[in-house]
Amino acid sequence: MLTGNYARGMKKMSDTEIIQGKVKTVFSTADPNEILIQYEDKVTAGNGRYVDFPEGKGRVCMEISEFLFKKLEAKGIKTHYISTVPRAIMCCKKVEIIPIEVVVRNLAAGSIVRETTLEEGKIINYPLVEFYLKDDEKNDPLLTVDRINLMGYSAEIPLLRNYAREINAVLKSIFRDIGLILVDFKLEFGYDADKNLLLADELSPDGMRLWREGKSYDKDLFRKGEGDIVEVYKYILHQLLQQA
Amino acid sequence: MLTGNYARGMKKMSDTEIIQGKVKTVFSTADPNEILIQYEDKVTAGNGRYVDFPEGKGRVCMEISEFLFKKLEAKGIKTHYISTVPRAIMCCKKVEIIPIEVVVRNLAAGSIVRETTLEEGKIINYPLVEFYLKDDEKNDPLLTVDRINLMGYSAEIPLLRNYAREINAVLKSIFRDIGLILVDFKLEFGYDADKNLLLADELSPDGMRLWREGKSYDKDLFRKGEGDIVEVYKYILHQLLQQA
Repeated sequence: MLTGNYARGMKKMSDTEIIQGKVKTVFSTADPNEILIQYEDKVTAGNGRYVDFPEGKGRVCMEISEFLFKKLEAKGIKTHYISTVPRAIMCCKKVEIIPIEVVVRNLAAGSIVRETTLEEGKIINYPLVEFYLKDDEKNDPLLTVDRINLMGYSAEIPLLRNYAREINAVLKSIFRDIGLILVDFKLEFGYDADKNLLLADELSPDGMRLWREGKSYDKDLFRKGEGDIVEVYKYILHQLLQQA
Repeated sequence: MLTGNYARGMKKMSDTEIIQGKVKTVFSTADPNEILIQYEDKVTAGNGRYVDFPEGKGRVCMEISEFLFKKLEAKGIKTHYISTVPRAIMCCKKVEIIPIEVVVRNLAAGSIVRETTLEEGKIINYPLVEFYLKDDEKNDPLLTVDRINLMGYSAEIPLLRNYAREINAVLKSIFRDIGLILVDFKLEFGYDADKNLLLADELSPDGMRLWREGKSYDKDLFRKGEGDIVEVYKYILHQLLQQA
């Protein structure tokens, strides 16, 4: 039952009911406005070129996401989160995903270092909001505002930018409280049936960089083969729950 | 004698006098404000991965560049061009190259098609001016205005944008007069010793897309292995000189 942009980059597994993403599976439900998102015990990097299946990974990502979605909702930021159900499954509002990924950067790391003259760790005083085309086949290319305008999404840009900055303020403070620096993170947004713009997707260290004293507490551990992400993600979840 | 950004992406061949680019060689002269640029019988694509050495290619690129630089100068647009000397060598003002490549697009083609949802051939009504980091090692990545600002080149952006639009107007009209559509082209700029901003590098079908009835009259012939670029470039030069 999910159609259109939610299916972008995802493979339809059956006629109407399941859409398989890289590390999450989306199921339609009897309610046309609700979906179930299963977080799998799977991690990928390099646009799917590297894969692993660490036990417990889906559950911890789901629980961190749940924690952060609830915190954002408490601050008045609208998300697709409804509730959780057993087995690492989150019940969410069904949205039509905007095919633009939003990245917020507080420090320079990753692609911005590879693609500019900025050095890793450079503090970006006014957090940078960047946009990428959500299209795995094209390798999620960086978008300029001019390109977004030509693609017909100009109306969304100021909305997404403001939304992302608000979310950044909340998340930065949550992670600062547990001694982690929120370096950057990726967001996806979508419109629900009533055309409300909602934060969607997940909010876990799979889509963030979190640093403490030069060490990574995020998917870079997997990208660089430097450690057990599930243990680290569980540590983060534990710290978050203690703080709450 | 050339230092700094002119050397970016180029290999220094001797202590002070020669800088070897992918298809051009730059020689310093006795005059510290002048250089000689030799256009070689060489063509590359894919950031140097594909190479060929077609006879006469340097000369025809130099002559097309000479023609276009003179036309631009006649319209009041400052360039580094001084004169030509025998053997496909152009005498130019020495400039400190700004390490940002400027691309003007009148129609969608090439990377913008691969990196957005725009289809090839889509007319861009208000010509698009895009910026790329001039750094072969990083593969000349696309830059956003935010990234350029963080890199410290914010002052240049409006200057380069206006300059590029003026050049586009002149070049588009020159090529329209010989029945070719100027799809897109790349420019490089630099500062001379008196801090004048000048158009530099070359202006040939190596750095442009030129279309007529769906056919390419530019380096795409080499990129796609579809024809003899030297013959086509010579045809363009001949048409330009006849028109003049």
